Amino acid sequence: MKVVIFNEYTKNQLQPIGKKAYKNGLHKEIATIFEGTEVQVKFLSTLKDLLEHTENDITAQSLADVDVLIWWAHCNHQDVPDEVVDAIIKRVHEGMGIIFLHSAHFSKVIQKLLGTPCSLTWRECGEAERIWTADRDHPISQGIEQGFRLPHEEMYGEHFNIPKPDDVIFIGWYQGGDVFRSGVTFTRGEGRIFYFQPGHETFPTYKNPNIRKIIFNATLWCGKEEDKIQKVNKKYKDAPNVHPCEQVHKLFHAVGRVKQGKEVDE
Amino acid sequence: MKVVIFNEYTKNQLQPIGKKAYKNGLHKEIATIFEGTEVQVKFLSTLKDLLEHTENDITAQSLADVDVLIWWAHCNHQDVPDEVVDAIIKRVHEGMGIIFLHSAHFSKVIQKLLGTPCSLTWRECGEAERIWTADRDHPISQGIEQGFRLPHEEMYGEHFNIPKPDDVIFIGWYQGGDVFRSGVTFTRGEGRIFYFQPGHETFPTYKNPNIRKIIFNATLWCGKEEDKIQKVNKKYKDAPNVHPCEQVHKLFHAVGRVKQGKEVDE
Amino acid sequence: MKVVIFNEYTKNQLQPIGKKAYKNGLHKEIATIFEGTEVQVKFLSTLKDLLEHTENDITAQSLADVDVLIWWAHCNHQDVPDEVVDAIIKRVHEGMGIIFLHSAHFSKVIQKLLGTPCSLTWRECGEAERIWTADRDHPISQGIEQGFRLPHEEMYGEHFNIPKPDDVIFIGWYQGGDVFRSGVTFTRGEGRIFYFQPGHETFPTYKNPNIRKIIFNATLWCGKEEDKIQKVNKKYKDAPNVHPCEQVHKLFHAVGRVKQGKEVDE
Amino acid sequence: MKVVIFNEYTKNQLQPIGKKAYKNGLHKEIATIFEGTEVQVKFLSTLKDLLEHTENDITAQSLADVDVLIWWAHCNHQDVPDEVVDAIIKRVHEGMGIIFLHSAHFSKVIQKLLGTPCSLTWRECGEAERIWTADRDHPISQGIEQGFRLPHEEMYGEHFNIPKPDDVIFIGWYQGGDVFRSGVTFTRGEGRIFYFQPGHETFPTYKNPNIRKIIFNATLWCGKEEDKIQKVNKKYKDAPNVHPCEQVHKLFHAVGRVKQGKEVDE
Repeated sequence: MKVVIFNEYTKNQLQPIGKKAYKNGLHKEIATIFEGTEVQVKFLSTLKDLLEHTENDITAQSLADVDVLIWWAHCNHQDVPDEVVDAIIKRVHEGMGIIFLHSAHFSKVIQKLLGTPCSLTWRECGEAERIWTADRDHPISQGIEQGFRLPHEEMYGEHFNIPKPDDVIFIGWYQGGDVFRSGVTFTRGEGRIFYFQPGHETFPTYKNPNIRKIIFNATLWCGKEEDKIQKVNKKYKDAPNVHPCEQVHKLFHAVGRVKQGKEVDE
Repeated sequence: MKVVIFNEYTKNQLQPIGKKAYKNGLHKEIATIFEGTEVQVKFLSTLKDLLEHTENDITAQSLADVDVLIWWAHCNHQDVPDEVVDAIIKRVHEGMGIIFLHSAHFSKVIQKLLGTPCSLTWRECGEAERIWTADRDHPISQGIEQGFRLPHEEMYGEHFNIPKPDDVIFIGWYQGGDVFRSGVTFTRGEGRIFYFQPGHETFPTYKNPNIRKIIFNATLWCGKEEDKIQKVNKKYKDAPNVHPCEQVHKLFHAVGRVKQGKEVDE
Repeated sequence: MKVVIFNEYTKNQLQPIGKKAYKNGLHKEIATIFEGTEVQVKFLSTLKDLLEHTENDITAQSLADVDVLIWWAHCNHQDVPDEVVDAIIKRVHEGMGIIFLHSAHFSKVIQKLLGTPCSLTWRECGEAERIWTADRDHPISQGIEQGFRLPHEEMYGEHFNIPKPDDVIFIGWYQGGDVFRSGVTFTRGEGRIFYFQPGHETFPTYKNPNIRKIIFNATLWCGKEEDKIQKVNKKYKDAPNVHPCEQVHKLFHAVGRVKQGKEVDE
Repeated sequence: MKVVIFNEYTKNQLQPIGKKAYKNGLHKEIATIFEGTEVQVKFLSTLKDLLEHTENDITAQSLADVDVLIWWAHCNHQDVPDEVVDAIIKRVHEGMGIIFLHSAHFSKVIQKLLGTPCSLTWRECGEAERIWTADRDHPISQGIEQGFRLPHEEMYGEHFNIPKPDDVIFIGWYQGGDVFRSGVTFTRGEGRIFYFQPGHETFPTYKNPNIRKIIFNATLWCGKEEDKIQKVNKKYKDAPNVHPCEQVHKLFHAVGRVKQGKEVDE
């Protein structure tokens, strides 16, 4: 399985506050989740690269053999070029899985896939969060400690303006009095989607073993690790004109209709 | 309640085959569903108008007080200007209901709201269709004859490439051997969405009493006729920074974090 | 609309701790929600009555014209006679709505309707609860203050062992660190079901205006106040043998099958 | 993985009409689906055995290590002893998967798990059926031919009186004009449920390769073949009293409440 991890890698992450949490950027920390497994990690451009005019390598071509894209973003959503957005959405429709982390709820990609503003309430005061499993049957929640605790997180609270999820797997509790549907799934075309709320760039959330296992589980699920799932259905956009299987006696002669641009009398 | 009915009003509809089914365009036929009720019908530009360079009056302003938009389209989806699409989506997020009829499954608006290609299989040979109610509890299916029959329809068949619907209300059966989730609902932001498959422009489908009642029911449901539902939530895109309700002791002093752009030591 | 309110009315409720919260039993408090409205409240036997061998009047007959049954129970679930349970379930299948309050999650009726143990975690230490709306579109959440606060409640926490709800309307937050899907809906047969967690018998929860409005909204929704919904479908259990609509030529003569108990050759 | 296949094995199946379709009973045919795989098939009592007073071996004990139970029944639902029903339901709640075939929709077990009458319409005239995949992403639909055809089946039609399924995977089309949600999933406790409509005892349906693959896929899915899913959670009915994780200062001393049967003043 091939995974690409995208990170903005701007602002806080380049400051002491961010470097204290993740010395080389949080994408490098997330990559260590897959060390020693059969999941291969690839990095393409960060947003920092794009802003510095390094050549963009997030393209239909570079994503063609990617099973899962992990997308972390917080501040620069509008700077992501539309052709990158379109290439990703096409690949999701074809069957690439995608995991949106933390503030990626406001990315262009998730908004185009879900069709909603994805707005929420928020608060940044370093309060504790607990993560509760509401769906014990889902592959993503296997092996996760019920109600595990993150000492500090940014609060994202309800109402979360998303479509009704296919599954609400995790619900977050915050010390300050809020809750959030913090782990939810969707399907679009052949592609599986997981949104997961924790991961503010100044807290070492991606070092937490429960968080790491959730991301690992989600990668297998979004990547359709079950070999019985076909990974790519290239015909996802086809709208074929099909012949009737059952006999539809004389319909072509019995009904007034347009056939190949011409009117046909009854 | 105020309803706008949009129709392409191009091609077949202007030919004898179309005029035989609906003399003045199918939008005029659909409007008669609401005669004698408290639902007020308004017409804005047809696509024919837009193609003839008549001024476009489908705008944020003209939609501001509209409760439900009914959208019929088949052939000219790409000719709908993007600013019309954006104005409609904004209004759906704010709470305007929208009903997509027949080939509107391929319109830009539904694709942007659902985030999927909305592809399907199709066949045009005038075969019979039957419409079965799978959800007897939904307001849209009240008073509809189980398994009612349309003598001739265009076949739209599975697989229908849409997100998992909130409700599958109707399932279509076709003489030629296919089935379709022909009546499905979604919610996006504050807006309710109903897609309904029947309505090929050369068959008098919108004169069928069951079809008419479904469209009437769907208009009330999408328009949130229940007075207990707030019709407009103008803050649909807000992402407010909120204060903690519960005491979060000394967090602002206990945790390293970025506050107003500055790093704060622990 | 006719509503029956059932209360165990045993144990705590008859002690000073319970009488301090609700002088005459919490069913009498709940009844005041409907004062001055067109909803008519009826009381049938409490469980206290049944345990004192007062004649049981919760029967198929007494429930025949009831639109919604509100069921509060905490401690004596096993003392409810099976014929009462069966009569209620039959009526739910026919279209009677039912609201389960607080510990009614462990009642025989809800377990038989949902098919799950309905287990959860719990804690009784008078901690604060907040109730958050996750589904802003549902009739039950209209007019409810986002994140309203109850100063003291019994904690019911995840994992809540229920089927996937049709809608998760409310999520509860507890001071002690837990969350709960505290307001959820289901449909069984023609009947609508709402489970709502708050309402420990020693706290004056049913005097809280948001709680009262939720119960009022839920009563209208479960009772299908929308006049377009048929309230009773007496044929809910029918499994009719139906004739084919479409021509199935000579099938009766072409296929080996059992017909009226006899084998028929091809 | 261990699978038990239950068959009534009464009436038609013992007559020439049934023996022609399946010489030794349809359970023996279904068992051949798993030949050469790692799935081990076990047979316990048929209903024929029970009616002939052979000792019942469908017990909590014999089901203790079973991963999936496949249940075929048509005519003798009321003859299944309640202790068998209860043992099965307990095991489903613990995590055993269950597949209900054909008329098993009227079995006591499914009715108790779903909480609905499970009624439908039906017709037995040997008409053709086609099976369409509505959910292409589900493990159960992988490798199944879209719209495959069964030359003869008993018709089961909408409305199917079941709860809203977790997933509608297959929709059936019938020559006579009806449709049916013919493959649907549910979850109850830790157990996964699949209902699948085809399989009238006088037609060789279980010899059809698509039908066989669906049953095979469903067995893997219901049995949680993905090794990341815990197969048994023996604590499924626990309702533990839990301590607060977060500090709930002085609540035990600040709030009037019942604690260990005693009233506590504020």
